[in-house]
Amino acid sequence: MAKPDIEDLKQKLRRFADARDWTQFHSPKNLAMALCGEAGELAAQFQWLTEAESANPTGKALRQIKDEIADVQLYLIQLADKLDVDIHKECARKLRDNARKYPVKKSKGNAKKYTDL
Amino acid sequence: MAKPDIEDLKQKLRRFADARDWTQFHSPKNLAMALCGEAGELAAQFQWLTEAESANPTGKALRQIKDEIADVQLYLIQLADKLDVDIHKECARKLRDNARKYPVKKSKGNAKKYTDL
Amino acid sequence: MAKPDIEDLKQKLRRFADARDWTQFHSPKNLAMALCGEAGELAAQFQWLTEAESANPTGKALRQIKDEIADVQLYLIQLADKLDVDIHKECARKLRDNARKYPVKKSKGNAKKYTDL
Amino acid sequence: MAKPDIEDLKQKLRRFADARDWTQFHSPKNLAMALCGEAGELAAQFQWLTEAESANPTGKALRQIKDEIADVQLYLIQLADKLDVDIHKECARKLRDNARKYPVKKSKGNAKKYTDL
Repeated sequence: MAKPDIEDLKQKLRRFADARDWTQFHSPKNLAMALCGEAGELAAQFQWLTEAESANPTGKALRQIKDEIADVQLYLIQLADKLDVDIHKECARKLRDNARKYPVKKSKGNAKKYTDL
Repeated sequence: MAKPDIEDLKQKLRRFADARDWTQFHSPKNLAMALCGEAGELAAQFQWLTEAESANPTGKALRQIKDEIADVQLYLIQLADKLDVDIHKECARKLRDNARKYPVKKSKGNAKKYTDL
Repeated sequence: MAKPDIEDLKQKLRRFADARDWTQFHSPKNLAMALCGEAGELAAQFQWLTEAESANPTGKALRQIKDEIADVQLYLIQLADKLDVDIHKECARKLRDNARKYPVKKSKGNAKKYTDL
Repeated sequence: MAKPDIEDLKQKLRRFADARDWTQFHSPKNLAMALCGEAGELAAQFQWLTEAESANPTGKALRQIKDEIADVQLYLIQLADKLDVDIHKECARKLRDNARKYPVKKSKGNAKKYTDL
């Protein structure tokens, strides 16, 4: 039986931080700041690539991208955990909100509609 | 049986973008940039709060934080999907790497060790 | 006679990029992305520090902070140059807007008023 | 005689914060976080545009970009002021470092060389 991914990582992260007595550093403020730093590093991987090039990273670049994706995800889970936010539930709700906000008929192929998704 | 959370959201996001013909805008470069913008908005929710205050957001602030957490997660899943990156696998690997990099004995209560987790 | 700082750096940056034939990479989109990455690295310098600690960085941390401050500034000047935006003029205007938006009487010591400055 | 731009804005920002008793919120940590948020908003202006489109923003988009450029600049000056960092001096030094790191002969037209400027 597949365990929910995010719950599994949340449990692992709790054990990791507890064992190192690192929860003292993990205020939501600090975690949000750390997430922002990792998001910046992730963006930096793509900054001089064309959009087409960005679809095919290889070798060292791909390994770094995988690392940054994991870093962003791990901080996001820790931040949500501190604030008792259920990530999957909020994502599902946001998708429903967006479906209403961007009805297929009006949004089809239209980047303008997309500005604040 | 619980479906893996991330896989579920990935499927929903694919259908959402396909229905609106929005995959044309979703190069990894663009998605990384959008994720960065949402991470910045998430950080902005905490910028003038003390660390202690950041642990207890309420009302409108909490709703906005939930929204931003969902936005970051949804872009991260779409970015990983485009690059065929398995988020859960990379997170589990990164946690194992970090366990080696920050052994409990040396890292306990030590923020310095933590600089690039 | 003191030359305006930003103008001086703008001229130097133009010569630097021209000599290396790097203007081809310097679309506003790419420069904004690079700026975001550097801002993330700057934030990362402070993420595990308390607010009080953040006021007194020394040694290697201070050198890295100086580097990141310069990186953010240099990308900002290049971005503004590409879009023909006069940074000093826009800053002076924004300060006047903010003075109206946050009158001294109402804003004194009030972080709430400050949420979107 | 032209006053150095950055010095002029620094003085204005000090008076602005002092009048509102806002210096209490302006730890380097908080200012770096705020800067990150504004950099994210700036990047968001360009995220769905092609590189070519990003060179010609107009109307409302251009006004928002000007606002975000000013916000980033104003937070950067305040952060540097708190840490007693001379922005112009550090930028000039960084440009000299970069000239050595990326010699014209080796760097001409080469994005790879440019990865960590």
